[in-house]
Amino acid sequence: MSAAFANCRSVLVTGASRGLGLQLVRSLAAGSASPCAVIAAVRDPAGAKELQSLAEKHSNIHILKLDVVDQDSIDGAAKEVEALLEEEGLACLINNAGINVDANLDTVTAEKMMRNFQTNTVAPLMVTKAFLPLLKRAATRGTGMGIHRAAVINMTSLLGSIELYWGDRRSTFKWYPYRTSKSALNMVTRCLAVDLEADGILCVAVHPGWVRTDMGGPEAPLSPEESISSLLNVIGGLNEKNHGGFLHYTGEPLPW
Amino acid sequence: MSAAFANCRSVLVTGASRGLGLQLVRSLAAGSASPCAVIAAVRDPAGAKELQSLAEKHSNIHILKLDVVDQDSIDGAAKEVEALLEEEGLACLINNAGINVDANLDTVTAEKMMRNFQTNTVAPLMVTKAFLPLLKRAATRGTGMGIHRAAVINMTSLLGSIELYWGDRRSTFKWYPYRTSKSALNMVTRCLAVDLEADGILCVAVHPGWVRTDMGGPEAPLSPEESISSLLNVIGGLNEKNHGGFLHYTGEPLPW
Repeated sequence: MSAAFANCRSVLVTGASRGLGLQLVRSLAAGSASPCAVIAAVRDPAGAKELQSLAEKHSNIHILKLDVVDQDSIDGAAKEVEALLEEEGLACLINNAGINVDANLDTVTAEKMMRNFQTNTVAPLMVTKAFLPLLKRAATRGTGMGIHRAAVINMTSLLGSIELYWGDRRSTFKWYPYRTSKSALNMVTRCLAVDLEADGILCVAVHPGWVRTDMGGPEAPLSPEESISSLLNVIGGLNEKNHGGFLHYTGEPLPW
Repeated sequence: MSAAFANCRSVLVTGASRGLGLQLVRSLAAGSASPCAVIAAVRDPAGAKELQSLAEKHSNIHILKLDVVDQDSIDGAAKEVEALLEEEGLACLINNAGINVDANLDTVTAEKMMRNFQTNTVAPLMVTKAFLPLLKRAATRGTGMGIHRAAVINMTSLLGSIELYWGDRRSTFKWYPYRTSKSALNMVTRCLAVDLEADGILCVAVHPGWVRTDMGGPEAPLSPEESISSLLNVIGGLNEKNHGGFLHYTGEPLPW
């Protein structure tokens, strides 16, 4: 990756045991201008073997136990990160943890809708709330908006765009729980952008592309490296003009 | 109201005990060209005194017990309506029941987010699923799209528009649970529109305006009569061009 994160002192990535989260940590830690702290939050540190071996090679990777749907776990993780970063605060929170509770109109149930919403929509909000004191602390330094100051990046999806789910795009991915959870996460992002602007904390929703991960499947066009390389450049270049927006991993704005 | 519903044989309204739901039933039953059946679904029929006295005056009002967050209640209600409407099917389902679990960034909790999502997003989806056989039956008659054939109307809100929650609109209604639930309902509407188009069932999201109800409060600019009079004219005039859209109660399209 480029030096896009040269001015970012700390990044926390949720869902860092595999897929895009693991790639985010890998690319951030391997960069020529890596943040001082790359905090990799995972539900089960003991089971995150790839992350563990990555952390053995890069001393700036800190593995953090965090179950994003458990408020006690969130609160405990926030305390741990505060002890680690102290007066620096947290510069960049990447809410990446997400699931796809696969269901179409025939198979969707209330429970599936609720479960996907809890992980993909509610969890990023509650995690952001818990880390807000640390984000605000980081935002007291610097001017303008961006990862040099403080930012919340929500990993959402083009499949959460209501506008784009029409015309030619209607034939595939009829995923009710996933799509609604990502539309709702887009609104959460916008709400946070409205409320955190006065603190100088940038908030954006990003679409990482369709990637060959466990969730994306083998037929996806992008490798994790390709997606995250582009995405980190985009995140690194975010400024006040992008605040409250929804961006493709290439940097193009997306409609809600 | 006008004769907008002259060609609609049956309407089911959820959340019909008060507010906009009660007004929908009142206006529909009092119209010069009232549907054959106006089914007023309420959680607690015994407690719905205003609706009961309305039903005493209009023989086409049928009170139906329905708790929209209880799958057994939904399934039972669908059976009851099938027995009532038989081979006619159901022409128009208005998913009106909704709540506002008031919470801003400081006060929002996971539980509040989940509760609002369950009632405002999941319930309309599960109710629509349960009544789908009846909607499909109605849709076998007629051509084009509209309430003369079969339609699902989701009562959403301008506060669910992610696009509009910016600029001048940023100062008020910082309601995380409500806004996210309505954005998610907009996506549910779009998903249903994609999936039910082949059956000829029209699906739209509508914003009733800011109305003086228990939810809207006394300072709202519109009376329930004003909102619903305009809204029923809009619903009555819907056709295939509106399918999958989001409309203001005046008929203007709204951005997602």
